[in-house]
Amino acid sequence: MFSLTPVLVAVVCILIVWIFKNADRNVEKQAREPRARAESRPWVDEDLRDCTDLHEGEEDADEWHQSEETVDHIPFCPTRYSEEEMVKRSQEFYALLNQRRSVRFLSNEQIPMEVIENVIRAAGTSPSGAHTEPWTFVVVKDPEVKHRIREIIEEEEEINYTRRMGNRWVTDVKKLRTNWIKEYLDTAPVLILIFKQVHGFVETGKKKVHYYNEISVSISCGLLLAALQNAGLVTVTTTPLNCGPRLRVLLSRPTNEKLLMLLPVGYASKEATVPDLRRKPLEQIMVTV
Amino acid sequence: MFSLTPVLVAVVCILIVWIFKNADRNVEKQAREPRARAESRPWVDEDLRDCTDLHEGEEDADEWHQSEETVDHIPFCPTRYSEEEMVKRSQEFYALLNQRRSVRFLSNEQIPMEVIENVIRAAGTSPSGAHTEPWTFVVVKDPEVKHRIREIIEEEEEINYTRRMGNRWVTDVKKLRTNWIKEYLDTAPVLILIFKQVHGFVETGKKKVHYYNEISVSISCGLLLAALQNAGLVTVTTTPLNCGPRLRVLLSRPTNEKLLMLLPVGYASKEATVPDLRRKPLEQIMVTV
Repeated sequence: MFSLTPVLVAVVCILIVWIFKNADRNVEKQAREPRARAESRPWVDEDLRDCTDLHEGEEDADEWHQSEETVDHIPFCPTRYSEEEMVKRSQEFYALLNQRRSVRFLSNEQIPMEVIENVIRAAGTSPSGAHTEPWTFVVVKDPEVKHRIREIIEEEEEINYTRRMGNRWVTDVKKLRTNWIKEYLDTAPVLILIFKQVHGFVETGKKKVHYYNEISVSISCGLLLAALQNAGLVTVTTTPLNCGPRLRVLLSRPTNEKLLMLLPVGYASKEATVPDLRRKPLEQIMVTV
Repeated sequence: MFSLTPVLVAVVCILIVWIFKNADRNVEKQAREPRARAESRPWVDEDLRDCTDLHEGEEDADEWHQSEETVDHIPFCPTRYSEEEMVKRSQEFYALLNQRRSVRFLSNEQIPMEVIENVIRAAGTSPSGAHTEPWTFVVVKDPEVKHRIREIIEEEEEINYTRRMGNRWVTDVKKLRTNWIKEYLDTAPVLILIFKQVHGFVETGKKKVHYYNEISVSISCGLLLAALQNAGLVTVTTTPLNCGPRLRVLLSRPTNEKLLMLLPVGYASKEATVPDLRRKPLEQIMVTV
């Protein structure tokens, strides 16, 4: 038997309190961490943050197989050109695409809707993970809806510029001589908003995974840009930051669709300018083994 | 003053030990969590998992401005066609792209390298976040390297099929009537491996953020697919799962480059078949407002 002195009682009490506090801190730390991480990443679209579970499930399988179980396989015999023709065609196609520039100064002239339909048909020929075709192209012609889109984007942009962004972002943006006024959203005769369907639905209503949906829709946008260039229309590739949810609601798109890109489409205005940039030469982008 | 009985000592000891254990568990839980999350996502490429910090930093800024600070702005006057011409061109371009199919049966005939250079030049005209042009196209012609690539991909595929994947994945794959034999990796005269540069370097050697690098490189792949189709060549869009790091090392690419896609390129073999799939009609992919 031994007896407890007040000093020992005090030491034991302090010890217990200290241990408890530490345990609490761990719990607190855990709870706070995701928030802290989110706050340190102001540049990631808030809508994308909300759908982590969907984003996680989106990448699967290595080949982009069609998902149809019982589909027939049929012979395929594509067009074949002579080697000379191939070289000529590839040169001409490069020359066509090489004239493309991102244009922020658009004329308000109307453009033929048949052309818009055809360029979207062309975009719809893109390959997609498991042939899910996870894209929706929303074509906005209505001046009021265009203006409402502009308001939403400019509001969010102003917040991005003035509040959300850290020093790095502000420095980067300064270099770009840009601001949050997007006149082309009003003047372009057509805005194409491209939504990726992060998942689909099977007949029973259950969610169907859309493998590689973001990559698929981006490839499809590549085809769209080529088709626009081929038709003599101009655009600028934009990804409105943090506007996805508000634009989705404005355009009545379902929650499984997330805004990936917005392309204002039209003719270049007479005063259009572009930055005098060069592209990397072939030897900087191609390696042969 | 009060005295301590052995029972009280025991209770205090148990209490202290219990509190300590709890605190440990919290720490352990924290440490384990990322691992557990990773393990529950077998379909996400392991290489991509390793670069969370880079991935987090990759999305920034809403417009894809050029980053050059002092670049001049010059007038831009793109080619303009009559409305009739626009409609015709857009129809023809759609017809061309609509003939494209993913082809897994490739002939071993050689193809003109000038065409490969031109299609990669065309891909290099893609827009990119802040004009970073974050792509590297590795063209593999060497039969031994192609075979080594095949070995790596088939090894990883077999592991994917038999070990890594959960029930859902195995069920999905069963439907696809596929296996991990990729003969086209040997027979295709050319493999194009597309790497995304998740960051670059500024002159001082510091990392330079590559905004939207995955979307940019995917758009560029869209242009590449269009260019291949235009030249009369076929391919299949693949994203070899978990092979990125080994293929990167095999091809001596730097650590800031991650494999995004692999395209075997050539002519279709005489026995080529494709699944008898349909594409969604325009009204399913386009919405007008």
